[in-house]
Amino acid sequence: MNKVKVFAPATVANIACGFDVLGLALDFPGDEVIVTKTNSNEVIITACHNADNLPLAADENVAGVAVKALLKKLDSTQGFEIELTKGVKPGSGIGSSAASSSAAVVAVNYLLGEPFTRKELVEFAMQGEKCATGVAHADNVAPSICGGFTLIRSYEPLDVIKIDSPEQLWATVIHPQIEVKTRDARRVLKGGIDLKKAITQWGNVGGLIAGLYSKDYDLIGRSLVDVVIEPIRSILIPGYASVKKASMAAGALGCSISGSGPSIFALSKGKEQALKVKEAMGEIYNEYGVDYDIHVSQVNSEGARIIK
Amino acid sequence: MNKVKVFAPATVANIACGFDVLGLALDFPGDEVIVTKTNSNEVIITACHNADNLPLAADENVAGVAVKALLKKLDSTQGFEIELTKGVKPGSGIGSSAASSSAAVVAVNYLLGEPFTRKELVEFAMQGEKCATGVAHADNVAPSICGGFTLIRSYEPLDVIKIDSPEQLWATVIHPQIEVKTRDARRVLKGGIDLKKAITQWGNVGGLIAGLYSKDYDLIGRSLVDVVIEPIRSILIPGYASVKKASMAAGALGCSISGSGPSIFALSKGKEQALKVKEAMGEIYNEYGVDYDIHVSQVNSEGARIIK
Repeated sequence: MNKVKVFAPATVANIACGFDVLGLALDFPGDEVIVTKTNSNEVIITACHNADNLPLAADENVAGVAVKALLKKLDSTQGFEIELTKGVKPGSGIGSSAASSSAAVVAVNYLLGEPFTRKELVEFAMQGEKCATGVAHADNVAPSICGGFTLIRSYEPLDVIKIDSPEQLWATVIHPQIEVKTRDARRVLKGGIDLKKAITQWGNVGGLIAGLYSKDYDLIGRSLVDVVIEPIRSILIPGYASVKKASMAAGALGCSISGSGPSIFALSKGKEQALKVKEAMGEIYNEYGVDYDIHVSQVNSEGARIIK
Repeated sequence: MNKVKVFAPATVANIACGFDVLGLALDFPGDEVIVTKTNSNEVIITACHNADNLPLAADENVAGVAVKALLKKLDSTQGFEIELTKGVKPGSGIGSSAASSSAAVVAVNYLLGEPFTRKELVEFAMQGEKCATGVAHADNVAPSICGGFTLIRSYEPLDVIKIDSPEQLWATVIHPQIEVKTRDARRVLKGGIDLKKAITQWGNVGGLIAGLYSKDYDLIGRSLVDVVIEPIRSILIPGYASVKKASMAAGALGCSISGSGPSIFALSKGKEQALKVKEAMGEIYNEYGVDYDIHVSQVNSEGARIIK
């Protein structure tokens, strides 16, 4: 096998209370790569469809950087050609760069006979994130590679915990066509937080994890609260408060910022409910005259998948 | 039924990463109450065995305060006599006041035909905690009443989540005979914390809850880390670092301060391991010439129990 096609899904990082530690995978959209083993010792990005502004140089493209990190770990000089097709818009806040680097490392790992587990691949894809945002965070690449919900318990050493999603959990994600760069969004956060708020936050992280394991949708909903990051970052997203209010009124379990925004996600019990939330979210930006993409998706349990 | 005897167990609050939100119940020690329905409309503490310094006036004794809060909610003028026998030393950091108020509300609820669920009783026992420490916290009363591990996700409204303990999880708790008042211990904490530390903390809370549900003892161990409170509070406990080091060297999954101290707890997989940790902890204080009590106990799954 010298060639493989891999799809890696978009992801929602943070998930309200879990800033920098939680993420979940969507079924779609996602990025696709076609990776081919070559006889050279170079990693080459041959194309990056649907995103003309992304660099093709392997040391600047997140997929190239991630693959090179993997090969370095193996002391391998094997060459690869990577053809990337973007399905996740850059800057959308649903893990665009993560989908590319995740797809690439899963593909290369497959062609090399799977020397690494899915969890071990996270470390390499994180190097793609570092290239894209300046920070080697894992909260998008972990769910894109592993599927379900992921908890990054620790970075030193890296400790990724996969948590299966309750079957009826659906996400609605709206991406208003406004650009918020992750670098800028991170800059808004101050260095210190109130102890009382921190306690509220870790109580909610505990509640969310407990809700996922016990398939308690109400508890999941009660725990989807962010008292630390959302109040600060949401000011960068026009219409945020209205979208959240409308989503909750339409019956969502919870609603918050996806990653560093501008996408906003809501979780619902069941597809029908998630579609109602979609309608409610859309109405707000229709009213404001802001263009948007909107996705309704079950939480993806498997993560990146080999297509052929 | 006009008379009942109830045992409520000692508890470990905070559990490393879960400051102010997590707690667990021990099998012993614990406090016992004998509660009798009377024909008066008064709540009377008739005795408080094994603790001569505790007040008997119902408005000053935690058991009296908790019972009165329960009766107030019912608009009841029913009178009760409460005979309290302390098994948990006041000031030990394993929920001494909580055991008394928990036992009392469970007993009175029983005699009244159980108008409240166990979780609902937590609110009343919290009033006992307010009387004892100035803060109506629930992280000791919740596990003492409900058993297992408890997560206080929120106080407004009160949201108590019970999490069953993996069967092989045992606690070793050493109480060096040094007094640390909770009021003083809380005063040591400053108002703000570093965002990075807060993220580490909520990652560990998530990991601990995930470990409990998935019965992953290693994950439980990796998550028993406190980067926020322990570094500050442990300075109030002589020999803390040595006890922790010895416990970990003896094979404990994790070790931290019980509540606000001075008790130190460790969790282990299996009774045999917990007994090894007991020996290691004891040796340290033997060396230092500090008197101590030490308990080895499985995590108690049922909480306060009706004895007769």
